[in-house]
Amino acid sequence: MLDQMQKTVAEARDHGPFVPSITNIVTVNPVVNAQIGVGGSPAVFYQAEEGESFAPECDALYINLGTLIKDHETAVPATIKALDQAGKPWLLDPVGIGKGRIHQKLISFIKDYPPTIIKGNATEIIKLASAWGLKDQADQTFIGVDSKDSVQAAKSLAVKLARFTKQVVVISGPKDFVTDGNHHYSLKGGSALMGQITGAGCMLAGVMAVYLGVAQPLTAALTACTLFNQASQAAAQSAQEPASFQTAFLDLLYSLSKEGKLEANYEEDDLND
Amino acid sequence: MLDQMQKTVAEARDHGPFVPSITNIVTVNPVVNAQIGVGGSPAVFYQAEEGESFAPECDALYINLGTLIKDHETAVPATIKALDQAGKPWLLDPVGIGKGRIHQKLISFIKDYPPTIIKGNATEIIKLASAWGLKDQADQTFIGVDSKDSVQAAKSLAVKLARFTKQVVVISGPKDFVTDGNHHYSLKGGSALMGQITGAGCMLAGVMAVYLGVAQPLTAALTACTLFNQASQAAAQSAQEPASFQTAFLDLLYSLSKEGKLEANYEEDDLND
Amino acid sequence: MLDQMQKTVAEARDHGPFVPSITNIVTVNPVVNAQIGVGGSPAVFYQAEEGESFAPECDALYINLGTLIKDHETAVPATIKALDQAGKPWLLDPVGIGKGRIHQKLISFIKDYPPTIIKGNATEIIKLASAWGLKDQADQTFIGVDSKDSVQAAKSLAVKLARFTKQVVVISGPKDFVTDGNHHYSLKGGSALMGQITGAGCMLAGVMAVYLGVAQPLTAALTACTLFNQASQAAAQSAQEPASFQTAFLDLLYSLSKEGKLEANYEEDDLND
Repeated sequence: MLDQMQKTVAEARDHGPFVPSITNIVTVNPVVNAQIGVGGSPAVFYQAEEGESFAPECDALYINLGTLIKDHETAVPATIKALDQAGKPWLLDPVGIGKGRIHQKLISFIKDYPPTIIKGNATEIIKLASAWGLKDQADQTFIGVDSKDSVQAAKSLAVKLARFTKQVVVISGPKDFVTDGNHHYSLKGGSALMGQITGAGCMLAGVMAVYLGVAQPLTAALTACTLFNQASQAAAQSAQEPASFQTAFLDLLYSLSKEGKLEANYEEDDLND
Repeated sequence: MLDQMQKTVAEARDHGPFVPSITNIVTVNPVVNAQIGVGGSPAVFYQAEEGESFAPECDALYINLGTLIKDHETAVPATIKALDQAGKPWLLDPVGIGKGRIHQKLISFIKDYPPTIIKGNATEIIKLASAWGLKDQADQTFIGVDSKDSVQAAKSLAVKLARFTKQVVVISGPKDFVTDGNHHYSLKGGSALMGQITGAGCMLAGVMAVYLGVAQPLTAALTACTLFNQASQAAAQSAQEPASFQTAFLDLLYSLSKEGKLEANYEEDDLND
Repeated sequence: MLDQMQKTVAEARDHGPFVPSITNIVTVNPVVNAQIGVGGSPAVFYQAEEGESFAPECDALYINLGTLIKDHETAVPATIKALDQAGKPWLLDPVGIGKGRIHQKLISFIKDYPPTIIKGNATEIIKLASAWGLKDQADQTFIGVDSKDSVQAAKSLAVKLARFTKQVVVISGPKDFVTDGNHHYSLKGGSALMGQITGAGCMLAGVMAVYLGVAQPLTAALTACTLFNQASQAAAQSAQEPASFQTAFLDLLYSLSKEGKLEANYEEDDLND
C-alpha cells in the first residue's frame, strides 16, 4: 500500500489532475492552495451549468457543503447528476450538516448518488448516517456539536455508511479513520495545531479529491491522510502558533509531495479500542 | 475592569463560546482564524433557516454587512428576529453602510432590533447615526469616505447611538473609543500596520463577538480592543510589512490570549480632546 | 516610460485611488491585500445598486469573472453601464471564460462596452477573442485548458482584441505581453512560484486596476507587470515554498512600491519569436 501511495503522490504531481469544486467560502483560499501544492489543477464554481460542463472533463470533483448560498440548491444536484452520467469519482465533505432547508434537501438528494469518498469529522459522519437512516439504537453514539464527538464513537457508523455507499468513508480527527466497509485503517501522527486553524478538514478533503483523480478511493484517502499527518507534524516542529503553522504546513504539503517520500503511519483497525 | 477582562479572555479559552456569523467574504478566513485563536467556536452561514437554528443555541452572534449577496436580504432579518426571541447578544459591524438597496433595507430593519454591540470605524458610525436619524446640525461631523473621518468627530454620535440602543458602541481607529452611553473609554496602543491589511476591523468585531459570548458587552468590547492593541503592537516589533505582520498578529492573538496577561491601556474619555 | 511608471507607483501611494471590484471569491483576500499594499483603496461588492453608486465615485474599477454567483448576472451589466456613463476606466479579468450561461451572457454583453484594460492568461485571451468573433483560421492558436496555452500563441489575438477595443490588452504568463494594438511589449523576470499560488493573476489585475486609477492604461499595465516581476523575483530569493513565498511577495509589493524604485524589464515586441 505504501508503494501505491508514493505512486499516487507522484502521479498527481506529474499529471496535474483537473479537480473542480463547489466549496466553502471560509476556507476556499487555503483549500485551492493546498490542491495546487500537491500538483492538482483546481477550479471553483457555484453554477449548475458549470458543474455540468466540468463533470465530463474532470478527473475528480470535490463538493463541500459549508456556507451554502442559494446557488448551491441547483448547482449541487446538477453537478452530481452530471458526474453520475460521466462515471467520474467525487468526494463529499458534509460540513454543517443538518442546518437549514437547503442542506437537508441536498443531503437527501445525495443519498441516491453515493459519493466515491465521504470525508467528515466524527460529528458530521454521525449526522450523515443518521440523516440517511443508518443509525439505530444499538449505535453507541450521540449527536453532538462539531468535532467534539470522538472518532471512536463514529467508527461503526462510518462502516455502515461505507457499506451503504459501497465506497470509502473517512473520519478526520486526532486519529484519522478510513474504511471501505471491509477493511478499516487508523492513522496516527499529525498535530493538535491543525485544530487551531480553519480549513484543516477542508484542505484534507480537497487534497484527497486531487488524489482521487489519479488513484482508487482507498489509496487516495490513505495517501491524503498520511501526507497531512506527516506535513502537520513537521510544521509543528518549526511553528508553535496557528498562522505561522499554517504557512509552514502549506509549504510542507508542497515540498513533501515533491519529494514524494511518505512514511507509513497507518494500521488495520479492528473497530475495538 | 482589568480583572474582568483577564477573566473574559480565560473564559473564552476555557468554554469555547459558540459564535456563528454572517460575515464579509473578503475577510471571512482571517476573521474565523482570529476567533478560533482566542478560543471561540465559529460557524459561518448565509441562510435564514440556519440563522434561526443557530440563534437559540449560540452564545453570541456576529453580523457583518460587507459584500452583501441576495441571500443576506432574508438571512439577516430572520437571524436577528430569532436572536431577539432567544434573548441572545449580538454584534453589528455595519461595513459598507449606505451603498445599495439591500444595505439600506437591512440597516432600517435593524433600528427596531438594537444590537448588543455596534462596532464600526468613524465613517460607519457617523453614517449609521445619520441613517437612524440621530444626527442633527449641531453635530460637528461630516459624511466622508471610509476610515478618513476621525474617531474624534464620530464620538458624540457614538454616544447618541449608545443612548438610543441602550447598549455599547465601539469606534475602531488609531485610538479606539468605547461607550455605553454613560461611560466612555479611549484605548491607546496598536500599530499603523493594522491599516495595511484587510480585515483588521472585521477581526476585531469577530473576536469581540466571541467575548460577548462570555461577558457583558462593555467588558467584551474593552477586552477585544485591549487584546488587539497589545497583539498588533507586539506584531509590529517582529514584522514591518503587512503580510508577515498579519501572520505575527494572528499568532499573537493565540499566544497572548493563552497567557491571558492583558495590560490596561484604556482611560475614561470626557469627550473633549 | 520608466519615469512614468515610477510616477504611477508614487501617485497610487500618495492619492490612494478608490478602486472597487466585483471579484473572485477564491482570491479576494490576497487581491484586496495586494491593492492596499500598493496604496489603493479597495471595496468589494456584488450588488447592481452598489456598482451604480461606486461607478461615478471611483478612480477605476476591477471586474473579475471567476466564481460567478447569480448576483453577478445583474451586478456586472449595471456596473459596466454606470462606468460607461461616468466615463470611468475599468479592467476586465475574464477568469473561467466560456463555462456556463451567466459567463457567456456577460462576455457577450461586455463586447459592446470595451474594457480599458483586458488582462488574462493565454487561454483566457484566446477564448475571449474567439467568443467575440475575432479569431479566424489563420490564427495559429487553439483552445486549451487554463494557462497551458503559451503566451506566444495568444499574442496575435491579443493585438486583435486591442484593435477591436481600441484599448490595452495584457497576457500574463512566464513572459507577460502588453499591447495597445500598435505598440507591443514583452516583460521578463518574475518567478515560477507565482504559478504555485492561487490568485497570482487576480492580484496582478487588481493592482493594475489601482494604477489605472492614476495613469493611462498602457502605463498602468506596464507598471503593474514590472512591479510584480520584481517583487516575485525578490520573494523567490527568500522563500522557496508557495505559502511563505506568498507572504514574502505581498510584503515586497508593499515595500517596493513604497521605495518606488522600479527597474525596467520590458522590451518592444515585434510579435515574431
